[in-house]
Amino acid sequence: MYTNSLSGQDKPTIQNRHALSLDNSQAIRSAFFISDGTAITAETLGRSILSQFASVPFETHVLPYVDTLERAQDAVEQINMAYQRDGLLPLVFDTIVSPEIREKINSADSCNLDMYEGLIGRIAEETGIEPDGHSGHAHDHVDSETYKARIDAVHFALDNDDGARTRHYSMADIILIGVSRSGKTPTSLYLALQFGIRAANYPLTEDDLYDNQLPKALREHKDKLFGLMIDTDRLVRIRNERRAGSRYSSYQQCQQEQRAIQGIYISQGIPNLNVSEMSVEEIATRILQMTGLKRRIG
Amino acid sequence: MYTNSLSGQDKPTIQNRHALSLDNSQAIRSAFFISDGTAITAETLGRSILSQFASVPFETHVLPYVDTLERAQDAVEQINMAYQRDGLLPLVFDTIVSPEIREKINSADSCNLDMYEGLIGRIAEETGIEPDGHSGHAHDHVDSETYKARIDAVHFALDNDDGARTRHYSMADIILIGVSRSGKTPTSLYLALQFGIRAANYPLTEDDLYDNQLPKALREHKDKLFGLMIDTDRLVRIRNERRAGSRYSSYQQCQQEQRAIQGIYISQGIPNLNVSEMSVEEIATRILQMTGLKRRIG
Repeated sequence: MYTNSLSGQDKPTIQNRHALSLDNSQAIRSAFFISDGTAITAETLGRSILSQFASVPFETHVLPYVDTLERAQDAVEQINMAYQRDGLLPLVFDTIVSPEIREKINSADSCNLDMYEGLIGRIAEETGIEPDGHSGHAHDHVDSETYKARIDAVHFALDNDDGARTRHYSMADIILIGVSRSGKTPTSLYLALQFGIRAANYPLTEDDLYDNQLPKALREHKDKLFGLMIDTDRLVRIRNERRAGSRYSSYQQCQQEQRAIQGIYISQGIPNLNVSEMSVEEIATRILQMTGLKRRIG
Repeated sequence: MYTNSLSGQDKPTIQNRHALSLDNSQAIRSAFFISDGTAITAETLGRSILSQFASVPFETHVLPYVDTLERAQDAVEQINMAYQRDGLLPLVFDTIVSPEIREKINSADSCNLDMYEGLIGRIAEETGIEPDGHSGHAHDHVDSETYKARIDAVHFALDNDDGARTRHYSMADIILIGVSRSGKTPTSLYLALQFGIRAANYPLTEDDLYDNQLPKALREHKDKLFGLMIDTDRLVRIRNERRAGSRYSSYQQCQQEQRAIQGIYISQGIPNLNVSEMSVEEIATRILQMTGLKRRIG
């Protein structure tokens, strides 16, 4: 099974480990995210919690599909090896439903952080209903209607990316606008994959920016428009990664475009968001919140 | 703030509520996912746990960005209203870091399921380090290197979708192959957005399927190929949603294509996966597991 360090860098060498271990606060500690399914839930919550301990250099390992006692034994061996190597108890975040498999995982030399048991027990008590005992929720997405909504949204986003077509805008849930490289495409795709929302996107080019009105294709769907804004410094950096040293990437050009588009958002009353400090997840969530747009899945 | 029912259907009407409430086991119960950030973590774990109680009709509400006492008060009022309406204590899943805001949320009439406090306390005890107290982990993705890797991967997936281009395959981390509508495109995009992996995809058409060798563009990158398989019944259903009643969507055509591609995977020794019962998340996770491919972000 593959492992991955939290920092995205290569694993520390034995030498690095020892050097780091001299200062105890810098000792590397292993963290495992273990599940009988994709481990997305365990990993999402686990990383979120680890981010509260930014001073600890964690080495993280994702172990999905630990759904047999044999695989659980493999996991236990990995955890125990990490303990021997680190000299610190590994943190084990798990979302395993089967009591036998969970018990096996708990037998490892670890600080076990069960994410399910306590919460499920409290809900069973409150509702008076016993949990089903099946694993994960990933199968929700295999449900035919959900699958279709999601795939349709992805293909819609692809077909209507970057102003490629405008004739299907009547079917769009939302049309993202912004200057080149302001984050429209990844946001459209995330809205599609995560929420089943049909998001088109349209780049406002120089011609559009200095015209006195919105392009015709957009004017007809003004109620669906949502504008992305981005700080000039950040836009310059992103564009330079694409075309270094060009007019397109120059500070002056980026600043002018941002000023012009801000004017359009204000004069046309288009809701908009400065996305400079935001991840794609944050942009998408803020858009739902600001527009009241309903998800089709999730 | 927007709300969304778990089933993706419209909210039950008051009339439905009463009808359902006659049978106590069917009484609707509200569940809230609350966070000072995107609420993705709270929602992911919360839905996963609720799926263990499939017999309970939950009405779910996602409240992101509850990051001031005022917003917390709004949330409390929503929770209390739900309690009055349902006659059952709402379940409140939260991942709020600020003690003041968490205390406010806890003051609502609810069954509070804190996802952070217990786990963070145990880690602080084990590591001897106090948590940072900042919220969420979403900002990880704003880190410039991570942002770039992610956006580059998304654009790579778009540019190399559906066999559009093959000249950049040397830069691909993986090349997904399969028949039309076997799930290549959403999987490529998910690999890009979630893991920063540069995934191209190439549809094997009839010409390719009945040739005695792989298309040239693929032959040169055989070590990067990964094949998707799909049950004929499911493929027929998916294709019929696109072109109903066509030869393309016929059982015979789908079956022939699947048989031919299976032959190619076997004869060429291409790792492959039957994705019929899998969500996009599951497909992507299984591919990482089977190939040992390393993520670039996460």
